[in-house]
Amino acid sequence: MKVAILFSGGKDSSLAALLLEPFFDEIELVTFSFGHDDAWMRAADAALELGHPHRRMVFAEDVREKALEILLSTGYPNDALNYVHPIAVEIMAKECEFVADGTRRDDRAPKMSFSAIRSLEDRLHMQYIRPLAGLGQKTIKAMARRYLDFEEELSERYPASDFEVGLRYALKERCGQSKVDSIFPTNHTHSRVTRRKRFVQKIKGQEDQACQGIQSES
Amino acid sequence: MKVAILFSGGKDSSLAALLLEPFFDEIELVTFSFGHDDAWMRAADAALELGHPHRRMVFAEDVREKALEILLSTGYPNDALNYVHPIAVEIMAKECEFVADGTRRDDRAPKMSFSAIRSLEDRLHMQYIRPLAGLGQKTIKAMARRYLDFEEELSERYPASDFEVGLRYALKERCGQSKVDSIFPTNHTHSRVTRRKRFVQKIKGQEDQACQGIQSES
Repeated sequence: MKVAILFSGGKDSSLAALLLEPFFDEIELVTFSFGHDDAWMRAADAALELGHPHRRMVFAEDVREKALEILLSTGYPNDALNYVHPIAVEIMAKECEFVADGTRRDDRAPKMSFSAIRSLEDRLHMQYIRPLAGLGQKTIKAMARRYLDFEEELSERYPASDFEVGLRYALKERCGQSKVDSIFPTNHTHSRVTRRKRFVQKIKGQEDQACQGIQSES
Repeated sequence: MKVAILFSGGKDSSLAALLLEPFFDEIELVTFSFGHDDAWMRAADAALELGHPHRRMVFAEDVREKALEILLSTGYPNDALNYVHPIAVEIMAKECEFVADGTRRDDRAPKMSFSAIRSLEDRLHMQYIRPLAGLGQKTIKAMARRYLDFEEELSERYPASDFEVGLRYALKERCGQSKVDSIFPTNHTHSRVTRRKRFVQKIKGQEDQACQGIQSES
């Protein structure tokens, strides 16, 4: 079984990967960007720390344009985030049955409705997984700290590979920093994983030693 | 870190335990019953298979009475399930900061609202964890099968340790089987874990071998 995980390099999508690791044979960490910046490389660095293959995907031009249009017309980021996120899930679903992300219980955006999720799953014969959907912020931090070193950084000042920061870059390029400041909160932070401390489940050979009457799952 | 998991012995609460295992030093599987039946022993058997300590808790008489009253007045199980479930979470929260259960994304009941969860967490300084809140039924089965053998059984015919079956027993004792048949669906099934196939994360000594520059978490 393979799972593709939408991956920003932050603690949330990293914890999502850690939670799914023992249950999937293969994990691919996938970072979407809007194409004109190299912030996705921060996610590539974190993926290397986690020890899973990483891939960069670029949104099509029309997705970028539509996202900018939504940003400018609404004047706040949530609708644009809710526009690009299911597109990313859908793109990955076309090549992988299981698609996961690091969206949390307390996140307001991006957030797909229950009916949108069921529709996506039925239409594309895929399974959308949100390992952090039932976890609060304190729990996420406590669990992530067991395996990861991570830092909180101001999104205004440091590059990051999440959708919100990607939209900031795209909007800055199109309309300048003052427009970014008027639409995005100035104190937005993201986390960045700098080190994986433990590799409990992924050491080769351990699994066989640990088997007790294991049956083949293939 | 310790987590108490509301445990029925089925695949859902068992998968919740497997997901949390790598992140907690101690897991306690806790089964609530209404006190007049021994269906909780099915959960104790499954807990033995999983390899974690198990505890039976009995709801107070007034909780049992109130649950029966709700069942009889509403004529369907959901409100009674939504009454007893947060009481169980709250009881465990008084002795353990982290309390988890196996409620799923697609479950209708028991289900706590977002504001009820936040209120509970703030009031009791606890963290409520739903590891399966972002997982659909197919994903849950696929992930559980990697580690567990489990069977689906008709709740009418086989004992089980979940809230719904507990309420069935309590109602049968009070009002007879015909009342149970009029309130509960006849085709309700539950799952029962019969065997754990793999113990990847729990083998003693593995963790030390697997450490790469591990820092103490204590």
